Amino acid sequence: MPITRYNSNSRLSAAVVHSNVAYLSGQVPDDRTDDVTGQTRQVLAKIDQLLSDVGSDRSKLLSAQIWLSDISSDFNDFNRVWERWLEGLQAPARATVQSPLASPDVRVEIMVVAAVPTISSNGITLY
Amino acid sequence: MPITRYNSNSRLSAAVVHSNVAYLSGQVPDDRTDDVTGQTRQVLAKIDQLLSDVGSDRSKLLSAQIWLSDISSDFNDFNRVWERWLEGLQAPARATVQSPLASPDVRVEIMVVAAVPTISSNGITLY
Amino acid sequence: MPITRYNSNSRLSAAVVHSNVAYLSGQVPDDRTDDVTGQTRQVLAKIDQLLSDVGSDRSKLLSAQIWLSDISSDFNDFNRVWERWLEGLQAPARATVQSPLASPDVRVEIMVVAAVPTISSNGITLY
Repeated sequence: MPITRYNSNSRLSAAVVHSNVAYLSGQVPDDRTDDVTGQTRQVLAKIDQLLSDVGSDRSKLLSAQIWLSDISSDFNDFNRVWERWLEGLQAPARATVQSPLASPDVRVEIMVVAAVPTISSNGITLY
Repeated sequence: MPITRYNSNSRLSAAVVHSNVAYLSGQVPDDRTDDVTGQTRQVLAKIDQLLSDVGSDRSKLLSAQIWLSDISSDFNDFNRVWERWLEGLQAPARATVQSPLASPDVRVEIMVVAAVPTISSNGITLY
Repeated sequence: MPITRYNSNSRLSAAVVHSNVAYLSGQVPDDRTDDVTGQTRQVLAKIDQLLSDVGSDRSKLLSAQIWLSDISSDFNDFNRVWERWLEGLQAPARATVQSPLASPDVRVEIMVVAAVPTISSNGITLY
């Protein structure tokens, strides 16, 4: 099947893989009473799980879009968690802008694109 | 020609196809007196047309970015039209955020990425 | 190496190339005392440089996301510079929305995806 979808509902698929590239839906935190540090940790944990589901991981990120609901107050705290998450790895391309999100208590949403390697029949990793 | 563009003007191409992937420009409604339900229907009809132009269709969407100019008032109405459009299909990855759009009477803009199958000389569909 | 990154720091890579596609980080101007015309020129010059670094150029853009911090006042001036930059070429797919950016004096941010051709061993350009 050339397009593979993960965790689909009537509105979206949490991840879609096509041609060695995974497109993830924008991830938001479940516990929205957290501050931006806690919310960012929650979002990155959800991204880790989805990347694992599709056979990728955070070292294979290509691009990230980050929305903060209050960029002037939360940019530094967000970046601290983000950089720790990528420590020792090479970071993706990214853009970070401010937008009101689907619920007013969501402080951060992240949407990533990642590479998904495939293993050929003779054991070679292909991208 | 390895990059194929559709409906190009000096500012943008409505669609660009490269390596079995179509990148569409953000689509906005023509009749902006409509409410969000009508505007969403207009936008999705334009996307259907462009996907058809490039040899794809709404069942092959990979990713969608949705901007609503008033997410708190329009999110539910938007989703109702969106989910009906995708009924019986598998939905793409998506993110939905709030942004003021190019004109204040535009309530919704959608930008999608879709797979474009190619048929090989021996009749096999390739992605 | 199947994922190639350029100008990486702990937070982001300015460009990431995978499978003949380059994902650039959102580019912002360095001199933020400029008006939107000058800021757009700065941003497009940075994109030209990064595209050159990855072996691509502005004629191979696939998609662009443009954020203006004040779309109602700056949309026309932005488009004038953008269209001059693409004169004689075919434009990418694009979407332009308004968002407050990482610093309040940044009036424009642009994030692009571009094709990166490779030359095969027998001299044929591949995409």
